[in-house]
Amino acid sequence: MKPDTVSITTSAHGLGGLGTVCIFGTGDFGRSLGLRLLQAGYEVVFGSRDSKTSTPLEDFHPGPKVMSHAEAAKEAQVVFVAVQREHYDFLTPLIPVLQGKVLVDVSNNLKKGLYQESNAEYLSSLVPGAVVVKAFNTISAWALQSGGLDANRQVYVCGDQPDAKRAVEAIAQNLGLTALDRGSLRAARELEDLPLELFPLWRLPLGIATGLTAFFFFYLLIRDVIYAYVNDGRDISFRIMITLANKVFPIVSLVMLALCYLPGILAAFVQLYNGTKYRRFPDWLDRWMRCRKQIGLLALGCALLHVLYTCIISIRYYVQYKNNAELIGLIKENTNLTLDNAEAWATDSFFALGVLGFLMYVLLGITSIPSVGSSLNWREFRFVQSKIGFLTLMLCTGHCLLYAWNKFLKPTTYKWYTPPGSMLSLVVPCSVLVLKLIIILPCVNRPISRIRQGWERKRKSVSQQRF
Amino acid sequence: MKPDTVSITTSAHGLGGLGTVCIFGTGDFGRSLGLRLLQAGYEVVFGSRDSKTSTPLEDFHPGPKVMSHAEAAKEAQVVFVAVQREHYDFLTPLIPVLQGKVLVDVSNNLKKGLYQESNAEYLSSLVPGAVVVKAFNTISAWALQSGGLDANRQVYVCGDQPDAKRAVEAIAQNLGLTALDRGSLRAARELEDLPLELFPLWRLPLGIATGLTAFFFFYLLIRDVIYAYVNDGRDISFRIMITLANKVFPIVSLVMLALCYLPGILAAFVQLYNGTKYRRFPDWLDRWMRCRKQIGLLALGCALLHVLYTCIISIRYYVQYKNNAELIGLIKENTNLTLDNAEAWATDSFFALGVLGFLMYVLLGITSIPSVGSSLNWREFRFVQSKIGFLTLMLCTGHCLLYAWNKFLKPTTYKWYTPPGSMLSLVVPCSVLVLKLIIILPCVNRPISRIRQGWERKRKSVSQQRF
Amino acid sequence: MKPDTVSITTSAHGLGGLGTVCIFGTGDFGRSLGLRLLQAGYEVVFGSRDSKTSTPLEDFHPGPKVMSHAEAAKEAQVVFVAVQREHYDFLTPLIPVLQGKVLVDVSNNLKKGLYQESNAEYLSSLVPGAVVVKAFNTISAWALQSGGLDANRQVYVCGDQPDAKRAVEAIAQNLGLTALDRGSLRAARELEDLPLELFPLWRLPLGIATGLTAFFFFYLLIRDVIYAYVNDGRDISFRIMITLANKVFPIVSLVMLALCYLPGILAAFVQLYNGTKYRRFPDWLDRWMRCRKQIGLLALGCALLHVLYTCIISIRYYVQYKNNAELIGLIKENTNLTLDNAEAWATDSFFALGVLGFLMYVLLGITSIPSVGSSLNWREFRFVQSKIGFLTLMLCTGHCLLYAWNKFLKPTTYKWYTPPGSMLSLVVPCSVLVLKLIIILPCVNRPISRIRQGWERKRKSVSQQRF
Repeated sequence: MKPDTVSITTSAHGLGGLGTVCIFGTGDFGRSLGLRLLQAGYEVVFGSRDSKTSTPLEDFHPGPKVMSHAEAAKEAQVVFVAVQREHYDFLTPLIPVLQGKVLVDVSNNLKKGLYQESNAEYLSSLVPGAVVVKAFNTISAWALQSGGLDANRQVYVCGDQPDAKRAVEAIAQNLGLTALDRGSLRAARELEDLPLELFPLWRLPLGIATGLTAFFFFYLLIRDVIYAYVNDGRDISFRIMITLANKVFPIVSLVMLALCYLPGILAAFVQLYNGTKYRRFPDWLDRWMRCRKQIGLLALGCALLHVLYTCIISIRYYVQYKNNAELIGLIKENTNLTLDNAEAWATDSFFALGVLGFLMYVLLGITSIPSVGSSLNWREFRFVQSKIGFLTLMLCTGHCLLYAWNKFLKPTTYKWYTPPGSMLSLVVPCSVLVLKLIIILPCVNRPISRIRQGWERKRKSVSQQRF
Repeated sequence: MKPDTVSITTSAHGLGGLGTVCIFGTGDFGRSLGLRLLQAGYEVVFGSRDSKTSTPLEDFHPGPKVMSHAEAAKEAQVVFVAVQREHYDFLTPLIPVLQGKVLVDVSNNLKKGLYQESNAEYLSSLVPGAVVVKAFNTISAWALQSGGLDANRQVYVCGDQPDAKRAVEAIAQNLGLTALDRGSLRAARELEDLPLELFPLWRLPLGIATGLTAFFFFYLLIRDVIYAYVNDGRDISFRIMITLANKVFPIVSLVMLALCYLPGILAAFVQLYNGTKYRRFPDWLDRWMRCRKQIGLLALGCALLHVLYTCIISIRYYVQYKNNAELIGLIKENTNLTLDNAEAWATDSFFALGVLGFLMYVLLGITSIPSVGSSLNWREFRFVQSKIGFLTLMLCTGHCLLYAWNKFLKPTTYKWYTPPGSMLSLVVPCSVLVLKLIIILPCVNRPISRIRQGWERKRKSVSQQRF
Repeated sequence: MKPDTVSITTSAHGLGGLGTVCIFGTGDFGRSLGLRLLQAGYEVVFGSRDSKTSTPLEDFHPGPKVMSHAEAAKEAQVVFVAVQREHYDFLTPLIPVLQGKVLVDVSNNLKKGLYQESNAEYLSSLVPGAVVVKAFNTISAWALQSGGLDANRQVYVCGDQPDAKRAVEAIAQNLGLTALDRGSLRAARELEDLPLELFPLWRLPLGIATGLTAFFFFYLLIRDVIYAYVNDGRDISFRIMITLANKVFPIVSLVMLALCYLPGILAAFVQLYNGTKYRRFPDWLDRWMRCRKQIGLLALGCALLHVLYTCIISIRYYVQYKNNAELIGLIKENTNLTLDNAEAWATDSFFALGVLGFLMYVLLGITSIPSVGSSLNWREFRFVQSKIGFLTLMLCTGHCLLYAWNKFLKPTTYKWYTPPGSMLSLVVPCSVLVLKLIIILPCVNRPISRIRQGWERKRKSVSQQRF
């Protein structure tokens, strides 16, 4: 026994041993779980269909024992069933041995609604004498191996017998995972669906972002590229890649940022209309409010694209060609260059607002990182999301206003009678800012604050006396 | 009963039920707490002043029962009082019913020092027969609804009865939150003030950043804009927006970065002077050391602004005008362009140092994210913050030195006898680097290392023998 | 007693008191631990060699008592030994007093393998009557003071007596830390080495990155700078700082990104070859797979450098000189500028792919933040790392292909018969993409999927019947 490699494993044989755990199945998950259990100080016994050839965790000295299923089950009180549901019938001959044991179902399905009843309930019906606990199914083999840092560390536990649940929770905690009780075995179905979810809160925001991007892309394609082709016969289709994209993304970003703060304002008006906060918001508003963070993050993504596209403007071939052509024209005409002070102020302010707005944007994004957000108290979180959020919206709206300001009155702006994209993009943000301004007005703000502190309008006088 | 929606809630009726909890108040917090309790497998009973019309959590089947306060309190051992302090007097008639119950005070105040005694102590004096526990006040209704991921998940618990505290802690843990014991009910006041804190550690760094920004802004305004107006009569005020800002922010960033590493060096000298590490640092140094992270993050913010401002230099109207004017001048004078190799080396090195410095800066910022920092062990954390920190400071100081190096000896640099901002900005970083160099010297480093390992100078010989 | 400062500490004297803890040593760690214990509601007694002059935590009212070691030990059941191993012999006279006490060894060594046996085992042999528990050695004094947010909060506990371990774990939990059982006292050695680790998983990736950077740097130095000097006698060595760096870093980034996804593909082929997933991967593959995240993050770092270098291209002195020289040449020759539509399309697509690729890169980087990754379920995590990962690789490979596409056939490209760096850099990414394409083919994908679900090829028929 080499003393430098066994320091942890030997604990299983000393006073610090945490007892023996049995694992059925020497697959990926079974092996990873076994390794982690050994590292934590448990003795591990594998039950395998072929105990001679299976040699899991060979590199671990002294490694776990591998036995037949029946022998292995006798060694421990808790048995992990790390086998696909399709193979559960191997358990039928083991019913007598498993009497009174805790069977932990760690299985998942490949897709939702594949079976009528949950795997755990099926297991429970197969081995009626055992106590089935559903757990560990949201933990991946990889997470167990790599120390649980890369993915979710929460072990959801459900089962009908509190003591059995406590035993499984203790194992989870000893492995450095967080155990969460999720009720009776009937909840197993929900737990089994959990690992199949794919970004449920991102669907609506992604839909909105895709819709807005598609709309503005085609709108600007018609106004810029197709108009030039139809009217002037010029083919400037190459502009799609950057010039057009660098108009679409900032527009989508600004609109999404405004959409991020609109539901909070609408909620205030709904509360004001209801005269109470003790009434549920309409479903669409509730859903919208729940995915504000995702909307904001997509807006940040578009803003980052806009920044990157903008930073490479001057190294583009087309831009250099255009600048050189202009300069050669100037030289040939022998015109004197003069600096337009107003133009310098306007363009520099436009850029400065954009830069500051993006900095605030990034700040908002950083506080969306779970561990950053969770280090803030509620008041700080609200300060960042509300005060800094509206500051960001104001800076970005100002940035866009400075871009569009001197184009309102020129008739050439309205190609085919359509306003430019930047004007369209200002509609939602400006509305949000105006609505916010209304809410800040003392005569509106006072009743909203009172409602949020629990005050209600138009309650029956009886109930008010009774409280 | 629809089987696809009740999987979790039915656990409350099965063997996995966690018991009944009573909530007084159907407000925002009460409802959110109730929903979360239901989801975790508790039975929930609401006590409401108007049990007929109040229908909290309508969308939850089978939802919670709503009763009068007295009836509801009879159903459970733990009663959450989710009502504003101003309305606590509704509890007076309930005193007989609440005898021996655990009353959980979840309330907060709107501002500090509003009342003489804490809400929880007031509640305890109102209902002397009940055991009051302060808890959940740092958790927001929104955090309860959205699964606790967006904001702080730590439930601070205080109270005078250990069993009551354990009961409330168990509830918090079952809701997926982390319970932390904070002592007796006298600590309630502090807990009630906690949600009112607003970035206490950021005040000093923000003050420093604002002060430095204001100073350098006006200093450079006078040197650049006002000097040009007074001496040459030129109005170049538009430069404030970007040219000036892009001088102020890098200067502030560099100085703040140096200020981030200065206290650590001062602490070493203080320890060397004291001859021991077992003596407290002066208060100002202690305060400074505690907010180094915040100082560094503000420095990173300024550096990001500098990078963004720099990246858009070449698309600015003024810069294009200047370049074109210069070029036209060159062409008219028919001068031959020659590449100055030294200049090319100097400017490219200047940019390269800046880019590498910023990369290191970002690296430091990333390790400031709580979950990244907590995945490092102490040695790794120190390596990043100390070694990589000083590397960053060296790169950024070098970046600035290359900018200023050939301006020292030109008399035109000293407008109105003032040195340029870049020279001023080098004072603190260079001092820090020199002090660090002194500390690294073996003759200084050895005693510091010994002191940090517990060695003390000039202790009484008696105590040394005794140890 | 001032009521506004003692709210927490007084809990130690009330019903909420958590008992008394003794700390030997008033050094940095001892004091920090004492402060945290006081804040959590413990009574703290310091044992010091010189109880008269030592006044730890003076600013805490009512502060801890300071006594002689023997007196202090009598006050508590748990004694923290916050003293360097070299001074442990002061415990010998205390053996009678420490009989039956829990001694917590919090010590670390300055380097690995300094002593034959671990500090904790040495302590145990010194005071045989006491129960020694190793704990808290991975927690730094600074982490205890600053609330544990800045560094690791996991307290690893090992010892031979379960009750003693539970007592220490309870203290850790009451301090807001996470306690993890790591087995018997023999594991102490490993725990004592833990704080000495310095980025073990980063070594291989950093080695690869350094090797690639060095190779491509010298390769391009020869092709670009030395070739120009030897053939044309031109000194363009200044290009090293940015032009060359901006070729090396994107190449290294692309190759590293491909190396990040190569092991996953190789693993699939190994599984296909083995016909089972129940066999360990070769060691080199296992090691490679474990540091994929680190490889990817280094690739992201290089990509960020590439972006920063690219964004400052147009403000470089050399670039402006070159552009101006070209333009003056054009004007002198009186040539007419014409826009090459194909060139405009190619260059803009090149930039657009780069920008989109970098956005995806950043997305991958963000999901590497532990708290972001842990908020994803396993399926979402895989989706990001696999789907978005390959999209990133495709975008970046496309970006590079567009750069190299029209240089393949020009003989001037092959200076000294060497291909340009961009062509070399495409070898690995293109191989990875082709291999991935093969894996996606139904005829290959089907057996791999079956193997990953547990199917095995060529097992003895006997074992299949038995299962």
